[in-house]
Amino acid sequence: MLEDKNHTRTSISELGEFGLIDHLTKQFRVEQKSTVMGVGDDAAVLSGNSKKLKVVTTDLLVEGVHFDLGYMPLKHLGYKAVIVNLSDVYAMNAEATQITTSIAVSNRFPVEALEALYEGIHLACQLYKVDLVGGDTTSSTSGLIISVTAIGEVSEDRVAYRNGAKNNDLLVVTGDLAGAYMGLQILEREKQVFQVNPNAQPDLEAYTYLIERQLKPEARKDMVTLLRELEVKPTSMIDISDGLSSEIMHLCKASKVGCNLYEDKIPLDPQVINACEEFNLDSTTIALSGGEDYELLFTISGDDYSKIKGNPNLTVIGHMTAPSEGIHLITRGNTKIPIKARGWNSFSEK
Amino acid sequence: MLEDKNHTRTSISELGEFGLIDHLTKQFRVEQKSTVMGVGDDAAVLSGNSKKLKVVTTDLLVEGVHFDLGYMPLKHLGYKAVIVNLSDVYAMNAEATQITTSIAVSNRFPVEALEALYEGIHLACQLYKVDLVGGDTTSSTSGLIISVTAIGEVSEDRVAYRNGAKNNDLLVVTGDLAGAYMGLQILEREKQVFQVNPNAQPDLEAYTYLIERQLKPEARKDMVTLLRELEVKPTSMIDISDGLSSEIMHLCKASKVGCNLYEDKIPLDPQVINACEEFNLDSTTIALSGGEDYELLFTISGDDYSKIKGNPNLTVIGHMTAPSEGIHLITRGNTKIPIKARGWNSFSEK
Repeated sequence: MLEDKNHTRTSISELGEFGLIDHLTKQFRVEQKSTVMGVGDDAAVLSGNSKKLKVVTTDLLVEGVHFDLGYMPLKHLGYKAVIVNLSDVYAMNAEATQITTSIAVSNRFPVEALEALYEGIHLACQLYKVDLVGGDTTSSTSGLIISVTAIGEVSEDRVAYRNGAKNNDLLVVTGDLAGAYMGLQILEREKQVFQVNPNAQPDLEAYTYLIERQLKPEARKDMVTLLRELEVKPTSMIDISDGLSSEIMHLCKASKVGCNLYEDKIPLDPQVINACEEFNLDSTTIALSGGEDYELLFTISGDDYSKIKGNPNLTVIGHMTAPSEGIHLITRGNTKIPIKARGWNSFSEK
Repeated sequence: MLEDKNHTRTSISELGEFGLIDHLTKQFRVEQKSTVMGVGDDAAVLSGNSKKLKVVTTDLLVEGVHFDLGYMPLKHLGYKAVIVNLSDVYAMNAEATQITTSIAVSNRFPVEALEALYEGIHLACQLYKVDLVGGDTTSSTSGLIISVTAIGEVSEDRVAYRNGAKNNDLLVVTGDLAGAYMGLQILEREKQVFQVNPNAQPDLEAYTYLIERQLKPEARKDMVTLLRELEVKPTSMIDISDGLSSEIMHLCKASKVGCNLYEDKIPLDPQVINACEEFNLDSTTIALSGGEDYELLFTISGDDYSKIKGNPNLTVIGHMTAPSEGIHLITRGNTKIPIKARGWNSFSEK
């Protein structure tokens, strides 16, 4: 990705740390009224609004753990690093307003590589109307590390925590699941093919949706807007970064409730179903454990069902129960299977 | 540091990512009224205050670049990682209120090592009365990476940017300079002695202040309070993380002014002067280029001089000039030397 192109390569040390930050951030424009001072001082300055709460979230992406530059172009990586944080802001039912980005990078990366990374960051900022207000750029002894902090705003009567789900609430998910994980399977298979035969021309047309879900995920800002328009306030909400089972368990644990999840209700794209057949994988298992879908999972009171009914973006996949009933998957064959977290864990021994 | 102790070692993978975060953060208590929801949801939630601005700053510390675990105990590292960010908040003349911390760590670190790191983070939170409200813990393919974001508050009439210095303003520094850099020289010398003779017992008594400045720096929260009590509003302010020359250049560039800095006014501790003689280093050069002192550098109107005069924590070291006059050091011998940034740059070729 970085090595095989023959374009200009400018050494990072030619610009220095401050020159580099100026160079990479000069194209960014301020969009949010609350951004008083962005990049360029000891800290960014944001104006307050007494009626709104501020939300803050942060994520760290590490080369070799969260991404592989062998098939993740740097522009996509920059985009995705922003999206995963915005997704956490939207999971509070909040509007994202500002981000900071810190990058540690070894000298083997030319300035042009960081430009590509910041192009992706910039694109995400433009599309989601958030301001880049600060950050840090430093060297790394090995590999690339990206830390993003996102800030958002939400009025007190709209904020959605993980802990508000009640017995009998409906469990709802946005969009569809398992696409990002299957996209990764496709990309890893192509990488192996490429290693054996570098001249192979992959035909990925049947998998475009899956690859896009993996390489260019979107955060559901539109769903936060939709819920406000529908006058639905989720009783609890979380984003699906690690897989449906892990996120359901977080909601149940924080809200002290149980849950019945219906296998036949889990929304899957036809490309997911086809790819699962091809790879001989169970699509329900992938939806439960795959991760990186960045859809929103939330609960609503049964009284709100009529407001969301029939909306193609929202699928009711289960309901909350008394805590003593536990957390179960009700299969297509009407068997009740306890759900255990099998989401992604970066610390698991490989 | 990590390898030579014989205490219990718990593998990180035994706890998993969420168990680990719970385990490391359970001792933290909320101190700030503005912290509505801390660790444990998709994002932290902070209440706003319409009369105050929020400030946000972030820093990334990378093993082998910013610290060497050979002589930096993990508890000190955790402490310092918080301090460097709080220092940026105080440099806005703001009060620090919350932090988030993200850690990437390889499996070679046992849970006990992370506990030591979080002990230091906890101590800094307690002493500076800031709340840990979020973060991310993930694995790393090599080494330890710490990303801290700090949030603070300041009223609009107190915020101090870098760009407000005027011609004839006085240049003031808190505390004294060059201690942290000389502490690092001492520690690096002792590391070499230890490598040659592991049984050598170092006598570091003559250097205790210097070593503390390097291993356990403090941020000048007290100076923000003092300036408010003295009813002095800095016209511009920055913290000294990279060295006096680099910070003066930042203030001059942002404020579009020049500066005369007087060599004989630069405050130095006697231990710095002694160590510089021992290492055959010029103390002025170290103060200009050494970095990591985390003192505050600010400008005040000449009218405010009587308010700070005689305060042992504040030293007037120069004055701002017309931009056409440039930035100069006036030496003890009354020679005028142009100041160039020679601060620390993590990207410089070594």
